[in-house]
Amino acid sequence: MKITFYTLISFLMLFSCNSISKKNDEEVSEKQMSREKNGPITIVIHGGAGGIKKENISEVLEKEYEIKLEEALKQGYAVLEKGGKSTEAVIKAIQVLEASPLFNAGVGAVFTHDGKNELDASIMDGKTGKAGAVAGVSHIKSPIEGAFIVMEKSPHVMMAGKGAELFAEKNGLEIVDSNYFFTEKRYNQLQNIKKKEQVQLDHDDKSQAQVYKDVYIEAPKMGTVGAVALDQYGNIAAGTSTGGMTNKRYGRIGDSPIIGAGTYADNATCGVSATGHGEFFIRNVVAYDIAALMKYKGLSLKEASNEVVHKKLVDKNGDGGIIALDRQGNIATPFNTTGMFRGWIQKGGKVHVRMFEEE
Amino acid sequence: MKITFYTLISFLMLFSCNSISKKNDEEVSEKQMSREKNGPITIVIHGGAGGIKKENISEVLEKEYEIKLEEALKQGYAVLEKGGKSTEAVIKAIQVLEASPLFNAGVGAVFTHDGKNELDASIMDGKTGKAGAVAGVSHIKSPIEGAFIVMEKSPHVMMAGKGAELFAEKNGLEIVDSNYFFTEKRYNQLQNIKKKEQVQLDHDDKSQAQVYKDVYIEAPKMGTVGAVALDQYGNIAAGTSTGGMTNKRYGRIGDSPIIGAGTYADNATCGVSATGHGEFFIRNVVAYDIAALMKYKGLSLKEASNEVVHKKLVDKNGDGGIIALDRQGNIATPFNTTGMFRGWIQKGGKVHVRMFEEE
Repeated sequence: MKITFYTLISFLMLFSCNSISKKNDEEVSEKQMSREKNGPITIVIHGGAGGIKKENISEVLEKEYEIKLEEALKQGYAVLEKGGKSTEAVIKAIQVLEASPLFNAGVGAVFTHDGKNELDASIMDGKTGKAGAVAGVSHIKSPIEGAFIVMEKSPHVMMAGKGAELFAEKNGLEIVDSNYFFTEKRYNQLQNIKKKEQVQLDHDDKSQAQVYKDVYIEAPKMGTVGAVALDQYGNIAAGTSTGGMTNKRYGRIGDSPIIGAGTYADNATCGVSATGHGEFFIRNVVAYDIAALMKYKGLSLKEASNEVVHKKLVDKNGDGGIIALDRQGNIATPFNTTGMFRGWIQKGGKVHVRMFEEE
Repeated sequence: MKITFYTLISFLMLFSCNSISKKNDEEVSEKQMSREKNGPITIVIHGGAGGIKKENISEVLEKEYEIKLEEALKQGYAVLEKGGKSTEAVIKAIQVLEASPLFNAGVGAVFTHDGKNELDASIMDGKTGKAGAVAGVSHIKSPIEGAFIVMEKSPHVMMAGKGAELFAEKNGLEIVDSNYFFTEKRYNQLQNIKKKEQVQLDHDDKSQAQVYKDVYIEAPKMGTVGAVALDQYGNIAAGTSTGGMTNKRYGRIGDSPIIGAGTYADNATCGVSATGHGEFFIRNVVAYDIAALMKYKGLSLKEASNEVVHKKLVDKNGDGGIIALDRQGNIATPFNTTGMFRGWIQKGGKVHVRMFEEE
């Protein structure tokens, strides 16, 4: 009887201790949140790099790109302003670009040699270090959402092809007929390239990057869209989505779905999304290298980004660029091509859209 | 007439200058080669990490593993002794392990949920910075050779599924029926796991790593084989080959075919091949992180490897290990599991094979 009484008392004490400790935890996390709230919310996006110059783009088209980049920025920023998470802002901004035929991601993706759209995407959460990616998918309406679902609903980081589509469908994502991504312009581009027998794999690295003129701008452009965001809780997220290379064959996977190459995020350093000649970005582990230069060498975001894009990649003929931001809301958007579609909104809400030379 | 004469003279001069310059280049590279020849040739290999303990493995089986690891080491080292390249040594050593049912790579690979073998492999050349990888292939006899062909014969780094197989076949690699990889033990393992409904994706990260007992050792083991070599010209190469996770679904891709995560090599720092719970290795960009710690923070190979395996991965519950070597022929083989099949030969030729505790 005595034992039972003590047991009861002990249970009650344990229970009340737990409640107090839980309440304290909640208070701490509330305090922490309010302390970190109203941090420098920021979003930065890109829509591909390449031979983007004033003379290669009509005024009307320039306006179209501007409008779409602005729309993506505003929608992403609105998420942050409402107290949304950086992952949500990244997805929102990228979905605007995926839905636009102007960019090589989602609708308007380029075609593989076999006349298919094979899309890749990845996302990383700088708070948890979790990441998700899909590669070679043809039926997930929003590949960046596919990547997010892999991160959130599975213990895996990367899923490919039909398996990834099945997983997305099971988790309620919208599955579309492959016609959804079709645009006549990109399809004709494939036919023209095939006619000219400019088969990608028969070219060496350098010429390959020069071969494909974009169907919109009068110059080669490497597609891919991406976004990096910092929310009011100080959490960074980065995401990338792409249609890959026109006329690509043999199930080629580029840097966009590779964590560390095309996408990386860590609250302790930065978030990065890359666009360019993917193979060079994989070999040079570009996105993580920027974080590593900050973490281990003490470089600033701008210094680290410039080091990688303007020195390391240039030395190796790796064309492209990156967008990045750190926890203070600093941004960097270096590229070693003639232009990169890009834009950002920092605290205060002013929208910046740029296409040509760096500032 | 005069112009023609001068033109002729100019051409002759140009031609002879070119010859001289070419000859000088050859002399320099010959000199360089002989200076670097007889460097500290080294090879280090692994055959998976996990709950490998004396009490989990019979004496007979221990001997079998020992013999096979020794064979792989000796064959790889023989390539280096004959003046072969580090890439060749890596392939040779890995092929011995791929051909053995004892390891989860090539023959004896684990089965996916659908009863298939989907193999991944990657290789990187530390001299050129080039890399190759195949993911989710079921018909390339030697996946590591598949990865090598992608590196050597294409401008790409990564190819997946049927596309990768087609490319390998076109380039003369041996294509096999999927029965080639079949072993009854691994197949029964899948059936048992399915019976118990231990479906991988229904488990969280930690339990998932604990679920699958290996069919050989009486404990969970994460498969994957790998090799890193340093040739007499001072060039480092690293490679990794795997059968992935038993009962894997949804086209899951692990760290083994991801450059920077499962494999990395750079003459300036080190070569690394990883084995473990792949998702953690991708998120932490493990293989490249060791190189980055050496390059940017001045850590030694051993310090950098320990920092990543014993601190960073342990903090995140990332089970596994890595093998690595630097240009001086130093090696590191840290793991945070109870054991890792591993071995090495350094200059002098003495064979070391280990399975259990670290020294």
